[in-house]
Amino acid sequence: MEERILELISLRKFSQIREIFSEMAAADIAPLFDILPEESEPIVYRLLPKELAAEVFVEMDVDMQERLILSFSERELKETLDELYLDDTVDIIEEMPANVVKKILKQCSAEQRKSINELLKYPKDSAGSIMTTEFVDLKKEMTVKDAFDRIRATGVDKETVYTCYVTTNSRKLRGVITVRELLLAKYEDVIGDIMTENVIFAKTHDDKEEVASLFSKYDFLAIPVVDNEERLVGIVTVDDAMDVIQEETTEDLEMIAAITPSGDKPYLKSSVWEIFLSRIPWLLLLMLSATFTGIIIASYEQKLTLFPALIGFIPMLMGTGGNSGSQSSVTVIRALSLGEVTFKDTLAVIWKELRISAICAVVLSAVSYAKILLIDKMLLKNVDSLSEVAVVCVTLAFTVVFAKIIGCIMPILAKKLGFDPAVMASPFITTVVDAFSLIIYFAVASFILSI
Amino acid sequence: MEERILELISLRKFSQIREIFSEMAAADIAPLFDILPEESEPIVYRLLPKELAAEVFVEMDVDMQERLILSFSERELKETLDELYLDDTVDIIEEMPANVVKKILKQCSAEQRKSINELLKYPKDSAGSIMTTEFVDLKKEMTVKDAFDRIRATGVDKETVYTCYVTTNSRKLRGVITVRELLLAKYEDVIGDIMTENVIFAKTHDDKEEVASLFSKYDFLAIPVVDNEERLVGIVTVDDAMDVIQEETTEDLEMIAAITPSGDKPYLKSSVWEIFLSRIPWLLLLMLSATFTGIIIASYEQKLTLFPALIGFIPMLMGTGGNSGSQSSVTVIRALSLGEVTFKDTLAVIWKELRISAICAVVLSAVSYAKILLIDKMLLKNVDSLSEVAVVCVTLAFTVVFAKIIGCIMPILAKKLGFDPAVMASPFITTVVDAFSLIIYFAVASFILSI
Repeated sequence: MEERILELISLRKFSQIREIFSEMAAADIAPLFDILPEESEPIVYRLLPKELAAEVFVEMDVDMQERLILSFSERELKETLDELYLDDTVDIIEEMPANVVKKILKQCSAEQRKSINELLKYPKDSAGSIMTTEFVDLKKEMTVKDAFDRIRATGVDKETVYTCYVTTNSRKLRGVITVRELLLAKYEDVIGDIMTENVIFAKTHDDKEEVASLFSKYDFLAIPVVDNEERLVGIVTVDDAMDVIQEETTEDLEMIAAITPSGDKPYLKSSVWEIFLSRIPWLLLLMLSATFTGIIIASYEQKLTLFPALIGFIPMLMGTGGNSGSQSSVTVIRALSLGEVTFKDTLAVIWKELRISAICAVVLSAVSYAKILLIDKMLLKNVDSLSEVAVVCVTLAFTVVFAKIIGCIMPILAKKLGFDPAVMASPFITTVVDAFSLIIYFAVASFILSI
Repeated sequence: MEERILELISLRKFSQIREIFSEMAAADIAPLFDILPEESEPIVYRLLPKELAAEVFVEMDVDMQERLILSFSERELKETLDELYLDDTVDIIEEMPANVVKKILKQCSAEQRKSINELLKYPKDSAGSIMTTEFVDLKKEMTVKDAFDRIRATGVDKETVYTCYVTTNSRKLRGVITVRELLLAKYEDVIGDIMTENVIFAKTHDDKEEVASLFSKYDFLAIPVVDNEERLVGIVTVDDAMDVIQEETTEDLEMIAAITPSGDKPYLKSSVWEIFLSRIPWLLLLMLSATFTGIIIASYEQKLTLFPALIGFIPMLMGTGGNSGSQSSVTVIRALSLGEVTFKDTLAVIWKELRISAICAVVLSAVSYAKILLIDKMLLKNVDSLSEVAVVCVTLAFTVVFAKIIGCIMPILAKKLGFDPAVMASPFITTVVDAFSLIIYFAVASFILSI
C-alpha cells in the first residue's frame, strides 16, 4: 500500500489516491503520511474529503499536525477546525508551540474560543481536561418526537448522540435517556416520564483515571460532567475513556519498570535522547541506593572471608526476596487501580500476605535446603557445614515474609499519601528488600555460626 | 448503605429495599449481595424488577451466581435467562459446574441452545468467545424508514442497536450504518446508498486482544465478526472490548511480576491457597536458576578472597543490570502489545537500544567511578586500588549494554515464537542478566587485576 501511494504521487495521479483514501478508515490513512516526502504532505492532505481530513488530522502525531497547520491557508485551517470536535482541538492546542496556537485561535469563532479557554483551564489529569462540550441536551417537557427533531437538527456536530442529557433552564442535570430508549418509546411519550433520573456523573475536577474506570464498571457510552454548581458542562465519551485507560496502563508499566512516564509518544518515534532521559534518573538513583547494600557487605567483609560459601548465596537471597516483594506489590498496585482494594482493607491485605508469605517461606526454604544439600554440599562441595545451610534457609524464610509485607504495604501507603502506587513497584521494593535481606542474613549468620 | 439494607432485611421491610434498588445501577447493587446472609440472597434477588435482576446477575461473582441458580425455580431461571444477552449466558455457563449447566440448558429454547453451543465452540481467547449473536441486521434495499421499523421491532433484545450491519440473504457482510447516520438521513433514503461499504471486521478465530485493540484504534462501538465463509455471525461490543483490555493488562502485569495469571478473580476474594499457587512456581524456578549465579561466585571464591572489596559491588552490578534490562523489556513488551513494534522492527529496536544503552553505560560508569572514589575509597576506605574501581566501572558499562540488548530482543523473539512477550519481563531478564553480569565481572577482574 505504501509503495503504491508513493508511486501514485510520483506519477501525480492524485485522483487515484483520493479514491483509495475514500475507502479507508482515518486511523489507517494517518500512518501513511509518515512515509510521504515532507513537501507532498499538504498536497496529499488536500486530496481528502473535508470530514475525513479532520478525522485523519486527529490521528496524526504532533509534529505532522504542526507542519500541516503551518502549511494551511487561513481558510483551510478554519475548515479543518470546524470539522474537529472541541476536545480534540483542545488536545492539539495543548501540544502546539505558541505561534501555532495563535494561528489556530485566530480562525476560531468567538464562541469556540470561549469554550476552548474553558476547557484549557481544567487540570491536566481531570475529567474536565478530557471532556467535550458538544453533547445533546433535552428538556423534560419535550416529547420523544421533539427529542428526535432536536437530535436531527443539532446531532451532526455532537461527539455522540446516543446518550442525551435532560437539563433544566439553568443547565442543571436532571436525567439521562439513550437513543435506544427513544427508539423503543412512543413518539408522543414525554421525556420527563421515561428518562432515568438517577444519573451517574463525574465532576470537572475528578481524576480522569477514576472517570475512565466508571465506563468499564457501568458499561456506559458517555458520562456527564458537572461543575461545582451541578450544572452540566460536558461529557466524556467511551473512546476517550479507552485512551485514558491505555495511557494509564503504559504509565503504570513504565513506573513498574523504573522509567519516568513519557507521555504517549510511540517507542519508535521517540528519540534516543528522550528515551535515555526517561530511564537514566531511576538507574542512577537505584544504583546509588545500592551503596547501602555495598556498605553492609563491606562491614561484614572480614567475617565473610571466614565463611566464603555464604557469599555465593547472596544473589539467590536477594533475587528471591526481590521477586517475592514484586509479586505482592504489583498485585496490590493492580487491585488498587481496579478499585478492588482501598485503604480500609490494609489490615486484610497484610493478614492475607502474611499467610501467603508464610507458606511460600516454608516451601522455598525446604526446597532450598534440599537443593543446597544435594547440589552445593554433595555435588559441588562448596558448602562445608549444615549450619551454613541453616543460615541460608532461615534467612530465606525471613526475607520472603519481610519482602511480601513491605511489598503490600508500600503501594497502599503511597496511594494514601497521594502518590501513584505504581512508584512503589519492583525497583523500589527490590532496593529496600536487598538491603534488609543482607541485614537479616548477617544477623542470622552471627547468631547460628557465632561470628 | 450496607447497614441500611441489612437493617431493612432484619425488619423484613422488603418494599423499601425494592425502592432503594430501583434507584441504583446494577454494578452498585451486585456488591451488596456479598454482605447478605446466604439465606437472604434469593429473597433479596426476587425483589429486583426482572430486567434489572438480570443486569445485577451478570455483575455478580461466580459463586453467588451458582448459589442463586441452584435456588431458582425453573420459571425464575427461565425468566433470568431470557433477559440475559447470549454472550453473558455463555460466560456464565463456562464457569459453572456440570449440574448447573444442565439446569441452565434445560430452560433454554432450542434456538438459544443452538446459539450457545456455537459460541461455546470457539477457542478461549478468540473473537468468537467474546462476541454476541444478537445484533441488528439490515438489507441493502431497505429505506431508512424500514431500518428504523426493524430496529424498533427487534432492538429490545439486541446488545446494541447503534451499529447496524447490512447483509445479503446468505448472511454475507456487505456494509455498516450507524443509527446516527440513519437519524441524519432522510426517511426515504435507501440503506445501500448511504451505508459504508468498506467494513472493518474480525474473524471468529482472531485473538480477542487484537480485536479489542481495534476499538481504541478506530473508536468503534461494535465490530462485526465473520466466519470463514465471510458470513456475519456475531458482533463484539465496546464494553466487552474494555473488559478484555482490563483482563489482558492484569495478565501482563502478573507475568511481569512473575505471577501465573489467575483469571480475573479479585484479590480479596481469592483464597490464600489460590494466590500461593499462582506465585510459588515462579519463585521456585527463579530461586533454583539462581544456582547458576551461586556456582559462578563459588568458582571464583578463592580469587574473591584476594580482593574482598569486589564482593561488595556484586549487588549494585546485578541490580543495575536487572533494572536496565527491565526498562527495555517492559518498554518493548508494551510497544508490542500496542502494535507500535512488530517483528520487522527488530533491527531498528536493537539499534535504538544499543545507542541508549551506550549513553546510559557511560553516564552510570562515570557517576559510579566518582561515587566509589569519594565514598568507598576515601570515606569508607573499603577499596584499595584504582584498578579495583576500574573493574567495577568497566563491568557496569558492559552489563548495562548487555542487559538492554537482551531485554529488547527476548520479548520480540517470544512473540515471534507464539508466546506472550510479557513472560520475558523483569524476573526472567534479571536472572539471565545476573548470571552474565557475574561472568563479565570476573572476566574483567581477571584481565585488569591479572588474577
